[in-house]
Amino acid sequence: MNGKYKAFWLDENKNVVVIDQTKLPFEYETIILSSANDAIRAIKDMIVRGAGVIGNIAAFGVYLAVRENSDIEYIKTKAQEIRQSRPTAVNLMWAVDLMMKKLESCDKDLLKYALEEAIDITDGDVERSRLIGKYGCDKFEEIMKQNGSKSINVLTHCNAGWLAIVDDGSALAPIYEAKRRGLDIHVWVDETRPRNQGANLTAWELDKSDIKHTVIPDNTGGYLMQQGQVDVCIVGADRVSAQGDVANKIGTYLKALAAHDNNIPFYVAIPEGTLDFAIVDGVKDIPIETRSEGEVKYIRGLTSEGVVQDLQIVPTQSKCVNYGFDITPNRLVTGLITERGICKAKQSAITKMFQP
Amino acid sequence: MNGKYKAFWLDENKNVVVIDQTKLPFEYETIILSSANDAIRAIKDMIVRGAGVIGNIAAFGVYLAVRENSDIEYIKTKAQEIRQSRPTAVNLMWAVDLMMKKLESCDKDLLKYALEEAIDITDGDVERSRLIGKYGCDKFEEIMKQNGSKSINVLTHCNAGWLAIVDDGSALAPIYEAKRRGLDIHVWVDETRPRNQGANLTAWELDKSDIKHTVIPDNTGGYLMQQGQVDVCIVGADRVSAQGDVANKIGTYLKALAAHDNNIPFYVAIPEGTLDFAIVDGVKDIPIETRSEGEVKYIRGLTSEGVVQDLQIVPTQSKCVNYGFDITPNRLVTGLITERGICKAKQSAITKMFQP
Repeated sequence: MNGKYKAFWLDENKNVVVIDQTKLPFEYETIILSSANDAIRAIKDMIVRGAGVIGNIAAFGVYLAVRENSDIEYIKTKAQEIRQSRPTAVNLMWAVDLMMKKLESCDKDLLKYALEEAIDITDGDVERSRLIGKYGCDKFEEIMKQNGSKSINVLTHCNAGWLAIVDDGSALAPIYEAKRRGLDIHVWVDETRPRNQGANLTAWELDKSDIKHTVIPDNTGGYLMQQGQVDVCIVGADRVSAQGDVANKIGTYLKALAAHDNNIPFYVAIPEGTLDFAIVDGVKDIPIETRSEGEVKYIRGLTSEGVVQDLQIVPTQSKCVNYGFDITPNRLVTGLITERGICKAKQSAITKMFQP
Repeated sequence: MNGKYKAFWLDENKNVVVIDQTKLPFEYETIILSSANDAIRAIKDMIVRGAGVIGNIAAFGVYLAVRENSDIEYIKTKAQEIRQSRPTAVNLMWAVDLMMKKLESCDKDLLKYALEEAIDITDGDVERSRLIGKYGCDKFEEIMKQNGSKSINVLTHCNAGWLAIVDDGSALAPIYEAKRRGLDIHVWVDETRPRNQGANLTAWELDKSDIKHTVIPDNTGGYLMQQGQVDVCIVGADRVSAQGDVANKIGTYLKALAAHDNNIPFYVAIPEGTLDFAIVDGVKDIPIETRSEGEVKYIRGLTSEGVVQDLQIVPTQSKCVNYGFDITPNRLVTGLITERGICKAKQSAITKMFQP
């Protein structure tokens, strides 16, 4: 319980230091969050992203609010602002609710309890990530055995690694575990337009861990599956409904369709906090974030002189639209890999596992 | 029969002038092709692209070979090199075959006949494009009537406009016709990674014709279809097998899956030359071009100073892979829109329409 994780950590002044994920992979910079507003901005501007880490920074954001002003009304106002910083990731609401529940049950030492609770929530993620890694990797070994193959090709979309969920990720946790177990694993990394979290973050993470991977345009996965070059798909999620519909980065649904069409297992790796029992029909009821047109119209990269630069890649006169997520209906999901084991993406199975 | 088309034209010296499509939309440049090797390079480097225009430039490439050396062995050698300049577009082989058949039947005036035949082939494309536009737009009007709607939202992938097939395109021909008929039409334009022919070419074309359109990441179409924001999908093709399997730009298959999953009609607009009766099972037998890794790793765009530049968008250490096309199985295709009318994507229907 030291408040140190790969994606962010506490410094000696108990400020929160985060890796600026908008700068990766070509620049590595950290940013110090010393106020609730800093935390809100970090979430809104995607300096931090990924369902889990958003939740963690939300929790630490409440802690920073307490540090600013221990008046409960002030804290509630800030908590509400944090809740509204991004609409789709349910971990954000979940973490803020846990923090507020804790604080409302205390009548003194709010700051101490706030810090403890934020660290507690985050340490819980570390343990959940470890378990997801274990169960997911067991599944990989099962698939390799079924296929009679000594290697495995995994396709993933967006980034659900340690930059997204401490400290091994959700979708990438089984991949890191496979590396530890010495399996021969190769990862197809969807670049994940428009923000390219696959090319920018997942590829960067995998390279740092010496895991074989290939970056592909988002258009490529269907062809690879047709050609038998994908053994299993695994993605994270921002919210999963009570019946197992999955809100994840835009484009996930297309890969799930292709996996289904080619009889390839499609798994969603999530900790419990990603489940939203208040919503049943995800396609109808999970709110989808619309983000700025500029994220489609401009792209960031490295010039031949080694300078990071933004480029316009759509004609000036053309409009763009930028939905952050789509919904994969549960019928396309082979199973949910959770810290409690693997269950079907069905209401009965989810209830049995999480609300027995 | 004047040899002038929107995407390329003959100059006063009977050289072929092409729009450099690698420079669009931010720069407009033309290149003069004055030798068979120029034509081969233009096709290989995607200075010209699109099934139809590749075929046209191939035909004019044979003409340029004749101009260089009227010895039939020389012409045959160049024709063979042209045939091999790109592997997936069947129009290329079709056009070269027509040229060689013509030339092998002549014993004099080869140059005159070569020029006439290349223009003939291309003029035929103009007429086929016009008819595809008519039949496709009739279908749009039928869909609007069925939906009881005064407007129509069309999704397209890649570029199958007049830059791809003279002189109105294949997939875009019905859209241009809709504009002429005064229909309220809006086009969702897939940006079409990795070469961004949607954002670079289709958006540019539509803007020039004042047609409402929105550029979207390739990941977005599935969500739009889930949300009822797409009335019909229409794409072109590089090759269609005898049973109606469709080779088209990588990612087409994913959109066809989503259309099928949401009961949205999915049409493929092609002239006869795109049909390959020699191949039945397209998924198994149509060869798919692997292009260079650099097309994924680097992207071209406009700096804030208005300079066109290439940027690296994938970490240096990461590998990429770049397949040019995928195959959409005929079961996902609602129909083929051709110059002879619309037929089902089934061997019997295709045979009845084209080889009665």
